[in-house]
Amino acid sequence: MDIYKNFKFKEDETPKYVQVANYIKNLIDKRKIKEGDKLPTIRDLSKKLGVNNVTIVSAYNKLKLEGYAYQKVGSGSYAKRKEVASSLRKEYSNALKKISTEDLEKVIDFTGETTGEILFPIDDLKTIINEVLERDGAKALFSDNRNGYERLIATINKVFWNDKLKNEDVIIVSGAQQGIDIASKGILNINDNIIVEKPTYVGALSVFKWRKVNLFEVPIEEDGVNLDKFEKILQKNEIKCFYTMSYFQNPTGISYSLEKKKRILELAEIYDFYIIEDDYLSELIYESSLEYIPFKWLDKKDRVIYIKSFSKIFLPGIRLGYLIAPTIFRETLQNSKHNTDITTSSLMQRALESYISGEKWKNNIKNLNDEYIKRYNCMKDLLNKDFKDILVYKEPKGGLNFYITLRENFKINTTELFTRLKKRKVYITPGAMFFTVQDQGQDSFRISFYQTNEAKIKKGLTILKEELLLLKEPHK
Amino acid sequence: MDIYKNFKFKEDETPKYVQVANYIKNLIDKRKIKEGDKLPTIRDLSKKLGVNNVTIVSAYNKLKLEGYAYQKVGSGSYAKRKEVASSLRKEYSNALKKISTEDLEKVIDFTGETTGEILFPIDDLKTIINEVLERDGAKALFSDNRNGYERLIATINKVFWNDKLKNEDVIIVSGAQQGIDIASKGILNINDNIIVEKPTYVGALSVFKWRKVNLFEVPIEEDGVNLDKFEKILQKNEIKCFYTMSYFQNPTGISYSLEKKKRILELAEIYDFYIIEDDYLSELIYESSLEYIPFKWLDKKDRVIYIKSFSKIFLPGIRLGYLIAPTIFRETLQNSKHNTDITTSSLMQRALESYISGEKWKNNIKNLNDEYIKRYNCMKDLLNKDFKDILVYKEPKGGLNFYITLRENFKINTTELFTRLKKRKVYITPGAMFFTVQDQGQDSFRISFYQTNEAKIKKGLTILKEELLLLKEPHK
Repeated sequence: MDIYKNFKFKEDETPKYVQVANYIKNLIDKRKIKEGDKLPTIRDLSKKLGVNNVTIVSAYNKLKLEGYAYQKVGSGSYAKRKEVASSLRKEYSNALKKISTEDLEKVIDFTGETTGEILFPIDDLKTIINEVLERDGAKALFSDNRNGYERLIATINKVFWNDKLKNEDVIIVSGAQQGIDIASKGILNINDNIIVEKPTYVGALSVFKWRKVNLFEVPIEEDGVNLDKFEKILQKNEIKCFYTMSYFQNPTGISYSLEKKKRILELAEIYDFYIIEDDYLSELIYESSLEYIPFKWLDKKDRVIYIKSFSKIFLPGIRLGYLIAPTIFRETLQNSKHNTDITTSSLMQRALESYISGEKWKNNIKNLNDEYIKRYNCMKDLLNKDFKDILVYKEPKGGLNFYITLRENFKINTTELFTRLKKRKVYITPGAMFFTVQDQGQDSFRISFYQTNEAKIKKGLTILKEELLLLKEPHK
Repeated sequence: MDIYKNFKFKEDETPKYVQVANYIKNLIDKRKIKEGDKLPTIRDLSKKLGVNNVTIVSAYNKLKLEGYAYQKVGSGSYAKRKEVASSLRKEYSNALKKISTEDLEKVIDFTGETTGEILFPIDDLKTIINEVLERDGAKALFSDNRNGYERLIATINKVFWNDKLKNEDVIIVSGAQQGIDIASKGILNINDNIIVEKPTYVGALSVFKWRKVNLFEVPIEEDGVNLDKFEKILQKNEIKCFYTMSYFQNPTGISYSLEKKKRILELAEIYDFYIIEDDYLSELIYESSLEYIPFKWLDKKDRVIYIKSFSKIFLPGIRLGYLIAPTIFRETLQNSKHNTDITTSSLMQRALESYISGEKWKNNIKNLNDEYIKRYNCMKDLLNKDFKDILVYKEPKGGLNFYITLRENFKINTTELFTRLKKRKVYITPGAMFFTVQDQGQDSFRISFYQTNEAKIKKGLTILKEELLLLKEPHK
């Protein structure tokens, strides 16, 4: 409790409880109190500082409201900071960094989060950029519309939306992550309630946690979130928004059924919340039984903030995407983008426009599909053949990932599996990465074929099986 | 008061005051209650909702803590929203948009905020990009270090900092605006206190307001902020950071004296706050009496978050800059960047690296200096010759702007001046744009020569003088 010794009340008009709260905030921000540390009891601290209990209670309430503390029933108050990377997250992030330094040939990267292999023809990029510079000269560097290059917006509207959007509702963003950040800054405030899928994309979770909102998680089923649980949360809480990946949900690979999408849109109207739809891979559908109908197409009441990334299907390093704003949030989201980085690089927007408006785009998507279908089938076949007693998964029918759950009778810890595979230069994403609560997802992992050709898939899955069996029965 | 009629308490564990507060938050977010609207009195609302006063007092306190309301002493509570563009801001932003659509030749743009004229040789850009694509192939698109392209960071350290930085403290950002946003997200929380210069850069103000911090403004003098006022604020308030532009402060053009910088760094240590130094134009120093010594050079105690933009001196549309993090905030700021947009476009980072590490960079800066010195002297001479009875200004000795204050006996409203000049296709930035409080800065304006050659300066200042005189004595 030494850290509280230095505290002295100032002789000014600031209420005492505010002074106490600010002092503790400061200690938390400077890591003198760490995430999860227990704060002193009301009685102890009031005695120590020579004030009455109410002052400390008020101070702690202020800390809670501002997202600096949380209460465990019957056990007191604990410090909370903006997300601190857990040891697993650090280990995982270091692993990703390591992959990029390794010889590409020797690594089997099932994480899907690196960009070592780029199927995009680099010469096309050269040609496009030179054409743009030739055509537009210095103008190629202008950002004359802060929401994005107008021709790009018009082309997106035409090519992807049959001109059904209002151009002024579209904002060009520097990748989907920025889209989520901008949406979050624009419509969410501290202590707002939002619903996320469980499990879900870590990058989105991280943005929401930084925004200090309250997260409600709803389990994902075969055709989307569990609607009973979803609606129970809506009945009890004022929900501001629902973050969803409607196709090839990350990590589970699930796509929503049409019925669920329609019902969620109805609920959005009834309970007055908005839907952030993160559409990151929908160009990669391998089975015709899966039809592409995003929430945004069904959105008659302007309830959907649609975010589209081009990173996986255009150029990973290029950081481009777009956001469609409901009219009510149009100005807010435009301002949010402007505050974030003024505007996205003009030259790259022009290059993307030139690319999408031409024929090369369609060829390239076709080539990507051809290659990824091969990998998809290869991985699926091997999983069915060699792993059927070990694991289960739901066929995603598209996308770039399989989400694996170990069978009941095959319980090993997938975080340990990750650590062991790493030593053999095979990288997976352990399930725990996708959950907010510790010790969840330990029986699952994600494997992606984004960075692995068929030969690597075969080799990688052989090693995966060896390690699975070794972990299960180490003495065999 | 009809909007409160629909409110009903839910039968669940949520405290009543929280329910009331959330209901009002919702009304504010959906613009049913507008910025500045008076909220009902405690007594009225408690009667209306059938609860006791304490519930409403607690609800209003919650709203205040969460940045949704503020109190005017003796007059009740008022709604506060994330910054809503005032009519002037909208008018100004529309004007900027208009400039970009006009024939460049016919416009005289003293705002300095557009990029119609680019002095950077576009052929150099073509060459650089092609060289990078040739050299790195598909790798040009990789982002193997999420803090930025490692060679760019090393080159920045070498070229600008004599290798005195730790590379791991540097984060590449997509322009200075993103640097401010990332710093703000990383170290500031709702209701934190921060000090800004008065007047200051609108884009920074906007970020801070969105973060819902409390702004304390300290007037700028000839050599930096007024230190007496600065320290008084420090004595009375727990200050988290001070946002400053140490050279050619925007809009005033002031640069800090060495003494003030040293003293502010001492104060930062005594009062435990951090300095966000926004260094946006320091390459453009025209008079040798002005020496370049940023806060960061003097920063022995790791108190400075340094943000550097390349927009004005490299390529406006390219959105690149860097941030130097104090070690204590390194991880937080890295995470903040990652949450914001994962990483900045790799190709452009490589292009910048190639450019800075070569000789062309120095030549280009020299050319820019040669051109801007001419414009600077031209503008200065005309101001001295033709405007000496009308206005005063402090010589900036560098940068791209003059900040003009009208003489006591020449009081006209510069917002009106802006509106009138606009009709004649001459664009200035009215002083009111740089203040947080309405009706301030009405006797000042900013003129920039970033987008105006000597001929335009002469023509523009002639029109400016005509309109000034007409406004002063309309019937003459």
